[in-house]
Amino acid sequence: MKPVKVGLLGMGTVGSGTINVLHRNAEEIARRAGREIRISHAAAKEYNAEKIHGLDKIDKITDDAFEVVNNPDIDIVIELIGGYSPARELVLKAIENDKHVVTANKALIAKHGNEIFTAAQKKGVMVAFEAAVAGGIPIIKAIREGLAANQILWLAGIINGTGNFILTEMREEGRTFDDVLKEAQALGYAEADPTFDVEGIDAAHKLTILGSIAFGIPLQFDKTYTEGITTIERQDVFYADQLGYRIKHLGIARKTDKGIELRVHPTLIPERRLIANVNGVMNAVLVKGDAVGPTLYYGAGAGAEPTASAVIADVVDVARVLTTDPNNRVPHLAFQPNKLSDMSILPMEEVVTAYYLRMQAIDRPGVLADVTRILGAAGISIEAILQKEPDEGASHVPVIILTQRVREKFMNKAIKEIEALDSINDKIMRIRLETLT
Amino acid sequence: MKPVKVGLLGMGTVGSGTINVLHRNAEEIARRAGREIRISHAAAKEYNAEKIHGLDKIDKITDDAFEVVNNPDIDIVIELIGGYSPARELVLKAIENDKHVVTANKALIAKHGNEIFTAAQKKGVMVAFEAAVAGGIPIIKAIREGLAANQILWLAGIINGTGNFILTEMREEGRTFDDVLKEAQALGYAEADPTFDVEGIDAAHKLTILGSIAFGIPLQFDKTYTEGITTIERQDVFYADQLGYRIKHLGIARKTDKGIELRVHPTLIPERRLIANVNGVMNAVLVKGDAVGPTLYYGAGAGAEPTASAVIADVVDVARVLTTDPNNRVPHLAFQPNKLSDMSILPMEEVVTAYYLRMQAIDRPGVLADVTRILGAAGISIEAILQKEPDEGASHVPVIILTQRVREKFMNKAIKEIEALDSINDKIMRIRLETLT
Repeated sequence: MKPVKVGLLGMGTVGSGTINVLHRNAEEIARRAGREIRISHAAAKEYNAEKIHGLDKIDKITDDAFEVVNNPDIDIVIELIGGYSPARELVLKAIENDKHVVTANKALIAKHGNEIFTAAQKKGVMVAFEAAVAGGIPIIKAIREGLAANQILWLAGIINGTGNFILTEMREEGRTFDDVLKEAQALGYAEADPTFDVEGIDAAHKLTILGSIAFGIPLQFDKTYTEGITTIERQDVFYADQLGYRIKHLGIARKTDKGIELRVHPTLIPERRLIANVNGVMNAVLVKGDAVGPTLYYGAGAGAEPTASAVIADVVDVARVLTTDPNNRVPHLAFQPNKLSDMSILPMEEVVTAYYLRMQAIDRPGVLADVTRILGAAGISIEAILQKEPDEGASHVPVIILTQRVREKFMNKAIKEIEALDSINDKIMRIRLETLT
Repeated sequence: MKPVKVGLLGMGTVGSGTINVLHRNAEEIARRAGREIRISHAAAKEYNAEKIHGLDKIDKITDDAFEVVNNPDIDIVIELIGGYSPARELVLKAIENDKHVVTANKALIAKHGNEIFTAAQKKGVMVAFEAAVAGGIPIIKAIREGLAANQILWLAGIINGTGNFILTEMREEGRTFDDVLKEAQALGYAEADPTFDVEGIDAAHKLTILGSIAFGIPLQFDKTYTEGITTIERQDVFYADQLGYRIKHLGIARKTDKGIELRVHPTLIPERRLIANVNGVMNAVLVKGDAVGPTLYYGAGAGAEPTASAVIADVVDVARVLTTDPNNRVPHLAFQPNKLSDMSILPMEEVVTAYYLRMQAIDRPGVLADVTRILGAAGISIEAILQKEPDEGASHVPVIILTQRVREKFMNKAIKEIEALDSINDKIMRIRLETLT
């Protein structure tokens, strides 16, 4: 199938990330999409050529974005300029020129989405906006497609990473709002003017979009209740904690008999809820459907490559609906059948992992030395040892050892040797340990 | 657009759930899909007519499943019989008859998926299997489409609810494996023969599928390392806890330079990880992509309606690729543009929620009585009160009150009255509280 030609508007953080990911993962993406995704034209007033890979594969880079949307060779326009204008004019012009559009612009969709979608509908083109909400988390896809069988009852999301970072630091480190905000600005999480983040406007843009796709209502940003986190004090975070709650800045959309709630405000939630434990700059959206029950989607809500991940997924999606050719569908196993890999499955003996070991040792000096000598000889480092008091009158004590990562066959051999020691009773209990980072 | 005609094989738990959800949410689903999804034929050896709604809308119910897959009127066959045979023969026959197939059968896909997909590819039909892994969580869609831009580095999932229920109860209640297993069987979470769940075979079926779509390798169930949870003792759960870990039964797929790891086994994971806090019968899959970073998907992994949610989403997906007509695509706002709802957005004053209130009260008898009298008169019930010791020499003490749910306008009025009390200093800090259930 011939390559999809893409015109990119904007080469800032997300634009650069999009070019970089498309370049680095070109082969993996083509194995999935069944065709090459090629940025043939790009527009930017300025960009940092040193931080972008694969610039030489772009036919033309211009400073005139309208030149790109008017180029007849381009199938799909990616809008990553942000803001209302000229993003709105560019997107409408692209649609007028029969081009599909992919955008990460939450402000644009929340405010001008109704107009843009009406124009797209008329022209029969798609406007995809997965990257506009919760960065790399495929939340739009999950709600629009994955939960299509459900009446959505409500959703609640941590959809602004800066706000969540501030609230997390206030709780975990006992810091003040102002203090953390300054650090967030220094780290680049928050803008020099942090109003959009801390006053909840950014979250309200995203909630407006989520509410519309959950309940099938037009976008109504102006009716979304918006309250920021600037008034939250350390003592509130502390008292909430004492009562078993966490304070999170949530966007909540809920269907009631009287109407639909769309509200962004700080919220106490029980600490046992999974979403209460979403910390730092991470995002998460909890969606409750009448058939599926509660579901949660978690990941990075911002950043160059997480956002690029969503942008490129949208481009692949748009490319999929261009023809009904079965070869253009999502492949059964995600990758084109003739592009499956013959990589082998590793035998368990060759897997590298960490271990929890529990053994019954005779309660006398030198036993632990024997065990650690065997582990050391096998090249196995010890992460922690827990030796319990023997039960009254018991001749053996449980010894628990956490090891660092090692190839399983070496661990098997060491376990056999330890089990052969006179001072060790029974079999050793072995459970694998993963840090999942 | 004309209705999609579906033939349903199997009217057990998931089959009944599928008919019920399609019946209850018919309008909502049609608003999204742009057409009616209609079960015109169904096959079952037996079924419980009292637990199924909308049976009268099915043209014909037969006990011969082959009659359904051979019916020329049917566009899509849903296979919910389970097991290897006759499910395999039925699915292959449906494909031979040019029908698309939707299945929830993890064992069938893990063992015979390569054969089935090859047959489907030849005929140009789709075989969709979202419901085969992690029930209602749209994890196949997330990996195949949502993360299409990424090289998947690894994934780790709690993909067997019974096993997770047992491990959760062992930790939280200090119960033994055998004891909890018996309860799980009584509750219907575990089969009379629990081998597939507790020995990890069910999880291995699902991991085989996840590994294939993550890395683009053929399905290789026989090479998936499988270890159950039957050897885990209470003391291991307890020691792991003391060391800051939780024991979870994980399916792990990881790409290494030497090959691909596919392994199911009990695993210690740090308690701070979100997935370590997925409890009871819930499922979750953590997926790490090179661009997006870690993402997590959480929800019900089994049950009639959660599984039906995934089955029906697959049917809608299949219906979408039947034509390139723009009206057949996923609508921008999830619902067809002419089916958007004009439900109003509730003003914040009309929203019902619970509250956290913090006030500065003079440290003298009777003040709390005044406050609770005002709340009581406004119909606001108190959930908890936290009164702190005054700081040395301070004339005021912080009083924190958690209330039950009430309409915001009543709370606004009560707050105004409390702030007017002589014994209360400054403004009241008010943060909303949601239990998210």
